[in-house]
Amino acid sequence: MGIEYDGTAYNGWQRQRTGLGVQELVEKALSKVANEAIETTCAGRTDTGVHATGQVVHFDTSAERESRGWLLGANSSLPNDVNVVWVQAVSDDFHARYTATGRRYRYLILNRLVRSSLFRHRAWWVYRPLDVARMSAAALQLIGEHDFSAFRAAGCQARTAVREVSSLRIHRHSDWLMIDIAANAFLQHMVRNISGLLVEIGTGDRDPAWATEVLESRDRTCGGVAAPAHGLSLVGVEYPAEFGLPVPPTPVLFPGAD
Amino acid sequence: MGIEYDGTAYNGWQRQRTGLGVQELVEKALSKVANEAIETTCAGRTDTGVHATGQVVHFDTSAERESRGWLLGANSSLPNDVNVVWVQAVSDDFHARYTATGRRYRYLILNRLVRSSLFRHRAWWVYRPLDVARMSAAALQLIGEHDFSAFRAAGCQARTAVREVSSLRIHRHSDWLMIDIAANAFLQHMVRNISGLLVEIGTGDRDPAWATEVLESRDRTCGGVAAPAHGLSLVGVEYPAEFGLPVPPTPVLFPGAD
Repeated sequence: MGIEYDGTAYNGWQRQRTGLGVQELVEKALSKVANEAIETTCAGRTDTGVHATGQVVHFDTSAERESRGWLLGANSSLPNDVNVVWVQAVSDDFHARYTATGRRYRYLILNRLVRSSLFRHRAWWVYRPLDVARMSAAALQLIGEHDFSAFRAAGCQARTAVREVSSLRIHRHSDWLMIDIAANAFLQHMVRNISGLLVEIGTGDRDPAWATEVLESRDRTCGGVAAPAHGLSLVGVEYPAEFGLPVPPTPVLFPGAD
Repeated sequence: MGIEYDGTAYNGWQRQRTGLGVQELVEKALSKVANEAIETTCAGRTDTGVHATGQVVHFDTSAERESRGWLLGANSSLPNDVNVVWVQAVSDDFHARYTATGRRYRYLILNRLVRSSLFRHRAWWVYRPLDVARMSAAALQLIGEHDFSAFRAAGCQARTAVREVSSLRIHRHSDWLMIDIAANAFLQHMVRNISGLLVEIGTGDRDPAWATEVLESRDRTCGGVAAPAHGLSLVGVEYPAEFGLPVPPTPVLFPGAD
């Protein structure tokens, strides 16, 4: 099942002891459609305030419903800041997290003197000019298989910090910067820590070579400040073609785009 | 002064007897910077729930401040869903409304089976498939100088209903439809009424020729349902080059765009 959400009001994806995770709402909605308790497993646990256009979850159920029934039934019970985008039956060997071969995140930055009211919950406003060439030079140093200990949160529970970043690109469209990053998997806060580092390099406060320095330190305290959560979106999860899942979300434009 | 706002929380631009108009907040913020009461005049009064990336206002003041002072001073007093984008001193013969030679609006539609949580306040969700070719054929009939009485709100106070639509184009980007319309000026609800009509033609409920029929009736009761306010944004206002104002807002992309 593909899920989209505006993370602004939620304490991340995961069911929480305090606060509300998106997972809880999705499971409640699905349980209503199934008429039995549903538990979901997601591809990427997003933090508080992080959005998703391409979250993927799986669940087991004995209920038999048409895809459309799951889709429209779940959406009718979900609040309007969370919605299911697609539903597809899969074989038993599918696992949203373990069979995923890659995740894609996008970090959005507004880079101009003044903030944007229309994107206040979607983009990090950085008013100092950012040099994309510097950021790209730094980004190149992070591509490949590395120990990303320097970019993981203190509370990150992954057993190993080795991840393979397959792509890390920075695009500018007038005042907007997008940091697009794809990896086999991510550590907690990894995209936000990388984005924070790239911004410090983009402003000129640090040299591009600082990226390698931080990476090789394997020490989070050597890195910069994490970029805020609200600029981040989980945009897609890749699975082997044999599962025949829908292609990740389509381009989305906005009033003002040409 | 160029202004951007998320119209979701406001009763439109104009100062209201009940409810809150964006104008009131902007004037309060400017009055604080000027240390005197400021009254603004806008280029286009937007309705409740309508957004703007390119609203333009003018005001008279005896206070002397740098552009940057007006800009950052006003933004520091404005809530985060309203912000000034640019400020420029103009000659006395400038008038935000009367010297404007054109306005541009964009109406955004999400055209897919499922809604979008991330765009719930920005796009009209139409789940029935829309045929852009039909809509474009209808749109052609509305271009030019016409009496748009059939597309004006009952309460519209304009003296004449004659307006010149210079451009009316419908674009599709995957599941997103944008209706871009430019005219010398607009009547109240004109863009929403035109968008509503185009959607009824796009679904196949009406023939493209219905556009001319409605236009020629000059009777609002012959038209269709107005498109909801939240899909609409005022994206730009044109002025004679002699005033040297900044070019309307730059393209804006969104997480998920390519």
